[in-house]
Amino acid sequence: MSKVRVHISTSLDGYVAGPNQGQEDPLGEGGERLHDWVTSLKAWRERVGMEGGEENVSSAVVAEENANVGAEIMGRGKFGPATRGPWGDDPWRGWWGEDPPFRKPVFVLTHHEREPLILSDTTFTFVTDGIESALEQAREAAGEKDVFIGGGADVINQYLAAGLVDELELHVAPILLGGGARLFDGVRPNLKLEELRAIQAPGVAHLKYRVVN
Amino acid sequence: MSKVRVHISTSLDGYVAGPNQGQEDPLGEGGERLHDWVTSLKAWRERVGMEGGEENVSSAVVAEENANVGAEIMGRGKFGPATRGPWGDDPWRGWWGEDPPFRKPVFVLTHHEREPLILSDTTFTFVTDGIESALEQAREAAGEKDVFIGGGADVINQYLAAGLVDELELHVAPILLGGGARLFDGVRPNLKLEELRAIQAPGVAHLKYRVVN
Repeated sequence: MSKVRVHISTSLDGYVAGPNQGQEDPLGEGGERLHDWVTSLKAWRERVGMEGGEENVSSAVVAEENANVGAEIMGRGKFGPATRGPWGDDPWRGWWGEDPPFRKPVFVLTHHEREPLILSDTTFTFVTDGIESALEQAREAAGEKDVFIGGGADVINQYLAAGLVDELELHVAPILLGGGARLFDGVRPNLKLEELRAIQAPGVAHLKYRVVN
Repeated sequence: MSKVRVHISTSLDGYVAGPNQGQEDPLGEGGERLHDWVTSLKAWRERVGMEGGEENVSSAVVAEENANVGAEIMGRGKFGPATRGPWGDDPWRGWWGEDPPFRKPVFVLTHHEREPLILSDTTFTFVTDGIESALEQAREAAGEKDVFIGGGADVINQYLAAGLVDELELHVAPILLGGGARLFDGVRPNLKLEELRAIQAPGVAHLKYRVVN
């Protein structure tokens, strides 16, 4: 059976985005530094159409993560700025331009209905009836492949709290953010995790866990 | 020059003790599980006079940590239960009985004066004039050796915030505590850390950082 997977970059003090996220600063103050380890990689740069980049032990981690993913689920806050309410007549089309790097079905959790948005090889489907419905639709779209929970923190925390995640990989950046979006907020301590591996890489430590359900 | 070192076990959600610490439950609810990885080790059990135990990749990490430490600094909350105020006529003598496992000079931060306490090979000196004075005394006592900041979280956070720590090793246990004493609270995001290593071990990941001052 396909797995539900989470992988996300976190600061050493447990934040996956810095304080004061907004349209100008989608990852919050200092949040860009969470991803320095990956944006320097050839594998990442190729995916977003950029040249150059390095190859190191993180390259295999990223390749493994991107392999066998059939669908992604994200919150409205990852899809666009933290506005609320109806989408309006000229709705936000995502942060990523006309050729988003997903190239698979993406399910966006929202309280407000909206027709699907097709941009190049990516289809965004807007789901208004909750995380379990989104997961059911994502599983259906993914077929034999895995479903990736893409964030933000609140969406990941909801799926963890509901016991719906199978694998969790944290990319721990050697930085402090001092505030922002906290992973694990509201997730009960009885969630059982089994350490699968820890990998040292330039500017990051990759910690992978199986959630024991 | 000798280093100032921190090493401490932390949950994946960033707590070094669980909620509701007290005399009956010094590590807070669920906090004992933070140390499962170390209390199962032969190296740890020998140090506290117990037999048996396993040897694995963590054994070398623990041996390295315990080597070359000449003095320890701890808060009153690590030395004893979280009572405040003067020590009284029959003062608390530590959690560890008549033969504490430190066997070196220990400096206890407190707001209330008290004569030094000598128990077997360990001398507890009570310091009332702040973290910098405690560090000066500990350095003096340690000579060429390193000074270990033993916790709790608030003491470690004070030393980190003051830029007085050289090395920081986190033993990340694959558990959530959901609340309690948080590492890095009050430490500003401009603290610069350099990842030295990440080691996978049974039931724990060891992440070591240099603080760039």
